[in-house]
Amino acid sequence: MVSHTAPLDGEFSLSDLPGGAGRLDVLCRAATEAFLVSHGIRKEVVLHLAIRDQLTISLWGPRLRHLNPDERSTGALLREALRAARGLPPGEERPSTPGITVRRLGLAPLLADLRAAGAAPVVLDEGGEPMRTVRIPDRPAFILSDHQDFTPDESALLAPFPRISVGPKVLQGHQCIALVHNELDLREAG
Amino acid sequence: MVSHTAPLDGEFSLSDLPGGAGRLDVLCRAATEAFLVSHGIRKEVVLHLAIRDQLTISLWGPRLRHLNPDERSTGALLREALRAARGLPPGEERPSTPGITVRRLGLAPLLADLRAAGAAPVVLDEGGEPMRTVRIPDRPAFILSDHQDFTPDESALLAPFPRISVGPKVLQGHQCIALVHNELDLREAG
Repeated sequence: MVSHTAPLDGEFSLSDLPGGAGRLDVLCRAATEAFLVSHGIRKEVVLHLAIRDQLTISLWGPRLRHLNPDERSTGALLREALRAARGLPPGEERPSTPGITVRRLGLAPLLADLRAAGAAPVVLDEGGEPMRTVRIPDRPAFILSDHQDFTPDESALLAPFPRISVGPKVLQGHQCIALVHNELDLREAG
Repeated sequence: MVSHTAPLDGEFSLSDLPGGAGRLDVLCRAATEAFLVSHGIRKEVVLHLAIRDQLTISLWGPRLRHLNPDERSTGALLREALRAARGLPPGEERPSTPGITVRRLGLAPLLADLRAAGAAPVVLDEGGEPMRTVRIPDRPAFILSDHQDFTPDESALLAPFPRISVGPKVLQGHQCIALVHNELDLREAG
């Protein structure tokens, strides 16, 4: 998820995620939606939060801990990661809480990393092909924006990749994540 | 949504929705998911939160105001409704914030009310018919449980109604709401 407004440091109150924390609530919901099912976690998922083209917080399903369904406790995990980024040199990956790391990394190098690791980027976009009938690559890396549209620079960067749409209404990011998971669950179940 | 643990009064901290407020975070997410799309609200929706077979908080889409995407502010709206219920006699409907009312009403009379108003109950349940291929009534009233299973009494009450399943994984309540909306959106769009 590409974030345009989240803070680059951890100096904010958990009681004001939508305001003082620059709509961090949007990223919290993306995180819980990416990983949580009823009473369990999707171990096979990795979520990268690319914040203002400067920091990337990554949540690694195989070793992720302490992620609860509520926004506030998720905000606390992300705040820890932002605090861990203080003084972080480019190129270094610093651990935060278990299963969460942070890097000084923008969107372009993040995409390059993903592709080098064999992932196929797919952009979630209301103008894309309908999800239910489209081919989805074997190792998809779904790219979506926060509550704001992709910038022209981001759109240019994402132009080479296929775009899919989850439905006829423009939804919130975390809702798109829930829908993509369900589509993949159904395909996997045959 | 049937709630088994939410408080019956408004004496709790918004900073501890999952704990001191009896998993009120579950109902907050149901509320935001029932109504919110990206930058808009689904005016045609009504959500009833049936709490511990004693109180029903209703959110009425046509006149609902002040519902924001984050959990904490939604928790504040529900807390207002719980506070408005203090000393409320059975049979009376009391307004809280715009578009939210509260009644001293259990699940059985709520279901009777819905049916009298022409709604057709449909139970969201992992053992139900697959949603994508099932017939959905014209005026459906989807019934789902919170983070706990339906009790035997509730299951008995719901036994006459059709059951549908959103997918092969057992999901959180708000995720099921997002999936049902998407299914209805797609059917409406043809």
